[in-house]
Amino acid sequence: MSGEWVSIENLKNYEGKDVEIRGWLANRRSSGKVVFLIVRDGTGFVQTTLSLGEYFDKESLKTWERLPLESALIVEGKVRREERAPGGYELEGRKVTLVSSSDEYPIQKKDHSVEFLMENRHLWIRSRRQNAVLRIRNQVMMSIHEFLQARGFTLIDPPILTPAACEGTTTLFALDYFDLGKAYLSQSGQLYMEAACMAFGKVYCLAPAFRAEKSKTRRHLTEFWMLEPEMAFYDWQDNMRLQEELVSFIVQEVLRKKRRELEILERDTAPLERIQPPFPRISYQEAIEILQRKGFPAQWGDDFGGDEESVISQEFDRPVFIHHYPAAIKAFYMEPDPENPDLVLNDDLIAPEGYGEIIGGSERIHDLTLLERRIAEHHLPREAFAWYLDLRRYGTCPHSGFGLGIERTVAWICGIHHIREAIPFPRQIYRIYP
Amino acid sequence: MSGEWVSIENLKNYEGKDVEIRGWLANRRSSGKVVFLIVRDGTGFVQTTLSLGEYFDKESLKTWERLPLESALIVEGKVRREERAPGGYELEGRKVTLVSSSDEYPIQKKDHSVEFLMENRHLWIRSRRQNAVLRIRNQVMMSIHEFLQARGFTLIDPPILTPAACEGTTTLFALDYFDLGKAYLSQSGQLYMEAACMAFGKVYCLAPAFRAEKSKTRRHLTEFWMLEPEMAFYDWQDNMRLQEELVSFIVQEVLRKKRRELEILERDTAPLERIQPPFPRISYQEAIEILQRKGFPAQWGDDFGGDEESVISQEFDRPVFIHHYPAAIKAFYMEPDPENPDLVLNDDLIAPEGYGEIIGGSERIHDLTLLERRIAEHHLPREAFAWYLDLRRYGTCPHSGFGLGIERTVAWICGIHHIREAIPFPRQIYRIYP
Repeated sequence: MSGEWVSIENLKNYEGKDVEIRGWLANRRSSGKVVFLIVRDGTGFVQTTLSLGEYFDKESLKTWERLPLESALIVEGKVRREERAPGGYELEGRKVTLVSSSDEYPIQKKDHSVEFLMENRHLWIRSRRQNAVLRIRNQVMMSIHEFLQARGFTLIDPPILTPAACEGTTTLFALDYFDLGKAYLSQSGQLYMEAACMAFGKVYCLAPAFRAEKSKTRRHLTEFWMLEPEMAFYDWQDNMRLQEELVSFIVQEVLRKKRRELEILERDTAPLERIQPPFPRISYQEAIEILQRKGFPAQWGDDFGGDEESVISQEFDRPVFIHHYPAAIKAFYMEPDPENPDLVLNDDLIAPEGYGEIIGGSERIHDLTLLERRIAEHHLPREAFAWYLDLRRYGTCPHSGFGLGIERTVAWICGIHHIREAIPFPRQIYRIYP
Repeated sequence: MSGEWVSIENLKNYEGKDVEIRGWLANRRSSGKVVFLIVRDGTGFVQTTLSLGEYFDKESLKTWERLPLESALIVEGKVRREERAPGGYELEGRKVTLVSSSDEYPIQKKDHSVEFLMENRHLWIRSRRQNAVLRIRNQVMMSIHEFLQARGFTLIDPPILTPAACEGTTTLFALDYFDLGKAYLSQSGQLYMEAACMAFGKVYCLAPAFRAEKSKTRRHLTEFWMLEPEMAFYDWQDNMRLQEELVSFIVQEVLRKKRRELEILERDTAPLERIQPPFPRISYQEAIEILQRKGFPAQWGDDFGGDEESVISQEFDRPVFIHHYPAAIKAFYMEPDPENPDLVLNDDLIAPEGYGEIIGGSERIHDLTLLERRIAEHHLPREAFAWYLDLRRYGTCPHSGFGLGIERTVAWICGIHHIREAIPFPRQIYRIYP
């Protein structure tokens, strides 16, 4: 009579059947003749009723009603439809097997400090909300692959150990690399993606990136994951169209497949339902005007911080593109606007609801002479960029790409305040444990 | 009359239609009245015929027959079925637009040294064989996600910056981490996956890993990608079953979807067709006996090198599991065999055709006392493992996992000699450029 081992998220396919759940005790209560065990297995939570009678005597019920939280156990029982249950189903328990009894679990219902929870991140990820956030992250990652692969993109893993900086050297982690001197942890795979798009047409990487920034804001991690697509023969407008389609696809897929997780997070889904292309597009100049109208002392040439981004995004009900920034405040590789070379053919995508920038993209300089000049103007080490310059010698063509921050995107979709919860094991300037 | 921009791999869907191809000149030849341009766009190669007549005059044909290799161009034409063409189709050219004329391309038909090709890796990846290898790599990565996601696994990205070593400190890259002392680049996400499997049930990471090893063999890189699944409530035999199903799925998917790339690589596919579960299983003891029978001076307690693995794998027509190694030569976290604690419940999976180990896996120690003893015996820093020990305090359960080396797997499937070609931008002890 022993049933198949199934996951809680799949219980709906086993109504009326005997199954086995393997997991951990998340909660329990008792009403004398019935003990209720809330079991989690990582895919969901299910209530199991243990009733005095055929399968459980008084003695055994006493054991189970005292079982320490987080004990590992195997529960056998019959799946029953139960409207009031969170997942819509519960188990009529037939047999419980204890795998291990837990020590007193340090994370209790009571409020813990963030510091305590981060120190116990290896346990905190078991909690209902953290589990939901990271399952949504999984969905975001998979939707990215699905979207890009269907459009003919090739995944090209970038090197993490690099001989030079992509965007300056002040925020680099450095290490000794055998007899070759210093190596640096990659801040971006972009330059390598540019080489790869000349070989594969449309490429992307989805990989960790590193910034040794001393920022302590809720939007910064020293180690984060970034999606970086790069497309040969795409101009800056093709680039924006791809971005809005990708972001919309990600959000709609999360809504379609991770509804239960969004409920656990009590995420208001109305703003997410609106995420459909096209997204509004404003120029940097228009963004400055919005800020000035709102009373910000913004001047042409300023870059935007989190506060400015929030104010701009409040004007729109979906993500907004800001394009044509001043060249002076953007990276060396961005293609200038042919009509006004003080501006670049770039875009930043600002998420709604105050979540700030989630994408930075641009058309790239494809002319050799101009790129050489920019590298000199930015005092970058020319020899480290020799291979990058080669791309402009042999079959150069207009090309564009962008970087999407995974944690910022996940934090926005989940509606969580700090991006440290959007990555399994966050790294910050004051945290490298666990 | 201008056609849609399509990729070469999709030409089969446009027979008789006008299309546009954007790419680079891979080769050309001329027969007086017809110029043949072989164009690549990263998804394939197609021959375009430019014929004297309606669309091209003598003058323009002269231009195109002299076009430097690797020049970027846009070709418009009609798709025609052509049995003799490699992809089965060719283009009847109507119009060619030059995007950029290339400088003389450094990689020519003539043989180049490996050193030269590696120094020009950013260009070398454009060549037919390198393109095929990395497109197969893309397929391997996607098949891994597809297989595991369908089985309820959650992707959990591991931290790369870690406070301690997983398997000893001699081969670690170290760096300064703000005021927190040294951080180390991860050699494996396994310990973090163990924490995650207690939170999500079945998890995996697919991420870069680092070993500062001074090995110069064809099987070593300092930076490589590794798949590491970890499953709560799996024993070592469940673990092996998952491995053989995964590896078989990957190989069969490459055969199904990347047939053209395998042809470019002239890969004999017969040995790949045989990759179906179950795989043979031999014990470490049996492996030693095979080696001794073949005249190797192997002794119980020896670890196997590449030569030994090759000899063992020659006995079998598919990958072979070697299980029950001596505990003394394996990692501290492996569960001992209850019937003989000198052995561990592990497995190495050896690829056929001399490609060596592609997987190492085991059941993990889940008893707190035993794990504490092992950490002490291996002189590992206990404080760094405090969180890892917690996993044995709160709801511990039998669990198992494994690591699959992406580059070794890709090299085997592609039939290439050195794993440096199985990663876009390889890092070796004497190479960090480009």
